[in-house]
Amino acid sequence: MIIDCHGHYTTAPRQLGDYREAQRAALARDPDHLGEKGTVAISDDEIRESLEGAQLRLQRERGTDLTLFSPRASWMGHHEGNAHTSRFWSEHCNELIRRVCDLYPDNFAPVCQLPQSPGAPIEPSVRELRRCVEELGFVGANLNPDPSGGYWDGPPLPDRYWYRLYEALCELDVPAMVHVSAACNPHFHTTGSHYLGADTTAFMQLLTSDLFSDFPDLRLVIPHGGGAVPYHWGRFRGLAQDMGRPPLDEALLGNVWFDTCVYHQAGIDCLLAVIPADNVLFASEMVGAVRGIDPETGHHYDDTRRYLDAAGLSEADRAKIFEGNARRVYPRLAKGATP
Amino acid sequence: MIIDCHGHYTTAPRQLGDYREAQRAALARDPDHLGEKGTVAISDDEIRESLEGAQLRLQRERGTDLTLFSPRASWMGHHEGNAHTSRFWSEHCNELIRRVCDLYPDNFAPVCQLPQSPGAPIEPSVRELRRCVEELGFVGANLNPDPSGGYWDGPPLPDRYWYRLYEALCELDVPAMVHVSAACNPHFHTTGSHYLGADTTAFMQLLTSDLFSDFPDLRLVIPHGGGAVPYHWGRFRGLAQDMGRPPLDEALLGNVWFDTCVYHQAGIDCLLAVIPADNVLFASEMVGAVRGIDPETGHHYDDTRRYLDAAGLSEADRAKIFEGNARRVYPRLAKGATP
Repeated sequence: MIIDCHGHYTTAPRQLGDYREAQRAALARDPDHLGEKGTVAISDDEIRESLEGAQLRLQRERGTDLTLFSPRASWMGHHEGNAHTSRFWSEHCNELIRRVCDLYPDNFAPVCQLPQSPGAPIEPSVRELRRCVEELGFVGANLNPDPSGGYWDGPPLPDRYWYRLYEALCELDVPAMVHVSAACNPHFHTTGSHYLGADTTAFMQLLTSDLFSDFPDLRLVIPHGGGAVPYHWGRFRGLAQDMGRPPLDEALLGNVWFDTCVYHQAGIDCLLAVIPADNVLFASEMVGAVRGIDPETGHHYDDTRRYLDAAGLSEADRAKIFEGNARRVYPRLAKGATP
Repeated sequence: MIIDCHGHYTTAPRQLGDYREAQRAALARDPDHLGEKGTVAISDDEIRESLEGAQLRLQRERGTDLTLFSPRASWMGHHEGNAHTSRFWSEHCNELIRRVCDLYPDNFAPVCQLPQSPGAPIEPSVRELRRCVEELGFVGANLNPDPSGGYWDGPPLPDRYWYRLYEALCELDVPAMVHVSAACNPHFHTTGSHYLGADTTAFMQLLTSDLFSDFPDLRLVIPHGGGAVPYHWGRFRGLAQDMGRPPLDEALLGNVWFDTCVYHQAGIDCLLAVIPADNVLFASEMVGAVRGIDPETGHHYDDTRRYLDAAGLSEADRAKIFEGNARRVYPRLAKGATP
């Protein structure tokens, strides 16, 4: 079995975007607009149609089985509007993911977004996490380390601001993928530099803190192959050493995993050369940031299974990366994707 | 001959730091403090002493010949104080680099920092660049794409704000290394995440702009092995393709080079697997971000020559990476390091 730990509902029916546009329009009239949750009217057939020709077709073509599926990351847009905006939007996005997983329980398992908002307390995110896991059977969450959208003006990950969320993640026994959303800072391209920069930034925050002493059971997934981290593994090992901190495998690799969203063979080879197989989770992020076909290979850039198949992994490591690690990191998968 | 294109004067005598502390103390009393240039009294013997046991010893031990030498990057601190602070500080730092190169013309060639300051015009940087190149014989410059120190609130690199500087770089026929300074944003660790994130950010700004159509002769060096770029080369190729932009080699590799400041073998192997040898410049950034000895190899992490020696390069590619490319990118080297 092959579990893809990183997929977003990038192909959601139009009505979801319409709901968001209506939120934006209301906020343009009044930035303090509270609004109400309202409805997003999407039929089961529309959900099926949005997936059959996209994620489900690609699963079949690529021979992958189960995708851990969360709302579209670039649309989380925590910087837009206020805490109410983010709450209603997140609830709708998560409920739509639940419906996807009800329709295709063998193909998708649900991962939630959190109703984060710049400057707002973390408690609403804890509540939505609990609702998603306890009531709706979600198996993980996406945590945005920079809800400002590229201005990086909130508390870093080791700050106590986040502790109630970490407590809930540990208590519920679900991991968080550390994943930013769209950048509204013109310096950053969302999928080209903001995502990768955030991955690297998050890792370094973990390296320089004692977060995992306070939360020995916390599990965090760094997406996009860990940003720049595996490519600069020597730099990070050396920085930790110069700072008198313990080796990375000892200090971090009991709590941190990297996914395989790296879209060429040399990158995957680098990842596998330095990160132990126990800490690598198969992922493609399809249908996502890069949708084209690589003229050098004739295959989709994000068909990451091919790079792993060509990497000469042992059977034991293959089994870990494609399935076993995901089951360890997301233990609620074993309990079934349905609540 | 082996040219190291990326070295900073990280071991400068104490008086340089004292000068900076005095600037800071004056700014603490009055943020609008103008001050005057003043003096930094350092003897030739003190300069010799600061280098003999450090950069010069390492050059000998590692068998490298010439280092392109600039002021300490993390100390540029463009976010500190105002335009006057930055001007006087940059002039002193650059003049000290000139003295180093006068004392050791065979070992060091001078690269300047620019007196950038958040919100300030670019003209003072153009003036200092001209002074350094035309009067002091410098062969290149470091350009900080984020003088805010991690808040990224100034104009991105393709903005016309920078055009007078690019015009001067082209006219003077010198390249710029795109290199940030210390982060004052608590999210970012200066050498662990800010440097690498900035490298990636700069590359993506170039990828999404037509800067090199306006400046076909502009040469930019992305340090630290290009941040996350080579590791995610497939992602960047695919993003360009999805956007309908030309292939990266066509659009960017006539104007962009990557250095080899990647501190482990697998990273260097990845760099060399994807970036053409014509676009790789040997560099170590010693004595820099990572000063320790890698227990896995018994050698310094930043002894990057060893990784290149072990990479199985052809003689032709070795010659390009170790010397030929640097001479093309920094043509003023041929004119001699002295003015």
